[in-house]
Amino acid sequence: MTDTPPLPPENVFDWLEAEGQRRAEAGLSRRMNPRPAQHAVLDLAGNDYLGLARDKRVAGAAAAAALRWGAGATGSRLLTGSTELHSELEHELARFCGTQAALVFSSGFTANLGAVTALSGSESAIVTDKYVHASLVEGCRLSRADIAAVEHASPAAIKHALATRRKPRAIVVIDSVFSADGELAPLGELAEICRAHSAALVVNDAHGFGVLGEGGRGAVHAAGLSSAPDVVTTLTLSNALGAQGGAVVGPRRVIRHLVDTARSFLFDTALAPASAAAALTALQVLKSEPELPAKVIENAGNLAMGLKNAGLPVDLPEAGVVALRTPSPQAATAWAEACAEQGIQVGCFRPPAVPDGVSRLRLTARADLSEADVDRAVKVIAATAPRG
Amino acid sequence: MTDTPPLPPENVFDWLEAEGQRRAEAGLSRRMNPRPAQHAVLDLAGNDYLGLARDKRVAGAAAAAALRWGAGATGSRLLTGSTELHSELEHELARFCGTQAALVFSSGFTANLGAVTALSGSESAIVTDKYVHASLVEGCRLSRADIAAVEHASPAAIKHALATRRKPRAIVVIDSVFSADGELAPLGELAEICRAHSAALVVNDAHGFGVLGEGGRGAVHAAGLSSAPDVVTTLTLSNALGAQGGAVVGPRRVIRHLVDTARSFLFDTALAPASAAAALTALQVLKSEPELPAKVIENAGNLAMGLKNAGLPVDLPEAGVVALRTPSPQAATAWAEACAEQGIQVGCFRPPAVPDGVSRLRLTARADLSEADVDRAVKVIAATAPRG
Repeated sequence: MTDTPPLPPENVFDWLEAEGQRRAEAGLSRRMNPRPAQHAVLDLAGNDYLGLARDKRVAGAAAAAALRWGAGATGSRLLTGSTELHSELEHELARFCGTQAALVFSSGFTANLGAVTALSGSESAIVTDKYVHASLVEGCRLSRADIAAVEHASPAAIKHALATRRKPRAIVVIDSVFSADGELAPLGELAEICRAHSAALVVNDAHGFGVLGEGGRGAVHAAGLSSAPDVVTTLTLSNALGAQGGAVVGPRRVIRHLVDTARSFLFDTALAPASAAAALTALQVLKSEPELPAKVIENAGNLAMGLKNAGLPVDLPEAGVVALRTPSPQAATAWAEACAEQGIQVGCFRPPAVPDGVSRLRLTARADLSEADVDRAVKVIAATAPRG
Repeated sequence: MTDTPPLPPENVFDWLEAEGQRRAEAGLSRRMNPRPAQHAVLDLAGNDYLGLARDKRVAGAAAAAALRWGAGATGSRLLTGSTELHSELEHELARFCGTQAALVFSSGFTANLGAVTALSGSESAIVTDKYVHASLVEGCRLSRADIAAVEHASPAAIKHALATRRKPRAIVVIDSVFSADGELAPLGELAEICRAHSAALVVNDAHGFGVLGEGGRGAVHAAGLSSAPDVVTTLTLSNALGAQGGAVVGPRRVIRHLVDTARSFLFDTALAPASAAAALTALQVLKSEPELPAKVIENAGNLAMGLKNAGLPVDLPEAGVVALRTPSPQAATAWAEACAEQGIQVGCFRPPAVPDGVSRLRLTARADLSEADVDRAVKVIAATAPRG
């Protein structure tokens, strides 16, 4: 490379423009739309399933914690970043989920990186569904393990990959609720397959926790696996709990191992006290209002039925997510913008956020949607749908 | 693997115990020490360089934002997670640093993952110092680029790796202030080397921002590189700004590219409003009190001089970090515990947090340390030092 004259500094990043041009032509450019504090739109795009982000008790707890503990945690969890709030949150999360222990991370993303990398390694195989969340994909890539990312929704393919692996240890890495379409993984069946092949099961319950299971204890609890010695669950505190952060819950030995070895735990600043306190209070609200999660499912069902009755092809939801396939990324963008113009904010999922490459509108139901909200959303989404 | 009888579920994670045992024997077990809200110890372990985490203006802004905007951001930045607060923070960070644009992430860790992966790829080479922060190492591993992690503190080795690379594009990835020892990278020299070899420079200024440069504008600004079209800087909002989160600042085309492609940005929940507001207010405090950063350096210098005069081998600090090497991880742990017993909290850095494998006490100076604080710390640290 030394014989060519150097590029002028202002041209070093020219390749970004070329790539950006290609994305623009493919309908894959992204734009942020910063929202005001009071937003008149009906939000069907966020993951605040229980409507707790703006709950006065939850926001009040965040505010009180910032004043009492400071705005930031000041360091990593093993230096100065662990407060009694973090411990209490971990204790309560484990108790609620029915696991021995819990460990809080600064995000669901880093919790997934930490769990997948620390529980695998070069002596391990990882078997995963090729549609799992990006944070699990990144965890796999970082792991140094042998990776088999098999056909979507195929326990048989997972079984085959486990049976034919070349490494002694193995983990199966799965989403309980796949985030793009909202369909469930068969956790009970997967746990049996794992057991027949001496593998552990690592479940990302980001869209199940607070929505599925008894009182919102999540998909792993619903499958009767929360206290299993060979099952590990990752959670986010930013979806149903309306806060920020992530957690891993599971056997005590797993949590101890993560404290010692998970690089996304060791080398990251701890979650801010305000977010830890918000998650803790949201958990208390969830415990005191155990009927909230069922409302999410009910509202998702009503949304889907309404759309189906309006002639749109939609699967009946198993969790809080309703997905509508579109012919192209451009069609998805145009549809989402048309909805927004009429006051309905929907998620617009395009590659790389859709593992099958099919762009979608993605709607999330909240516990606090009214019947009128659902009716209005159905009318607007149906009226703005692409022809054909 | 199918012919052996399956492990009982309770034995699937037995290997964790064996690894834990090996770590315990090597003095490498970790333990969290959750702190109360009012802590009587003198904190020389955190990264709250300017003492802003508990500043009433900063904590008050976090509290007000939680009440006004909600406890959580409710979604990723491209769905519902971008608020006007995030935009304002990005605008102000760019203005303060002297760059065209900025992008806020949920942590410095994810900002580093995002910058390194999105600005490299399979057509790129990455040249890095083998002692850079773990989050940069993880970014390199995720990048699919050719990686050369060269000898520490060797511009010649970086130059050689750039000159002999096999990929057309290249980035050099470096810490401005290495976190374990606090020594500075020669950014000006590295930028020249990059330019001679058509490479971009990506600088992690986690321990420089708020501490070095004019009014705390950081090491990249101090090197006259902040507006360079071929230089990208990553920051944390959790160190000098006392909040949580991270950011990438640099040319507008780079930021646009990250919005479209950085997976740790796209697939992560946005930073909580309270943390964005805290960082924004901390930045305003820093602008109104431009003398704060120099106090960090002065206090670090006094701490190091005191320890040197007490007979301990210590390098004079170039930023806010003072490091004391120890004979073993066990010695580091014992020394840190002895300090803690006398009310001085110091960082205990052991593998894998020390890239050279040498365990250390690591002290961070804060702007708000008094002369008496420094004197007391020196006395305790010297009195508890391992013999010999």
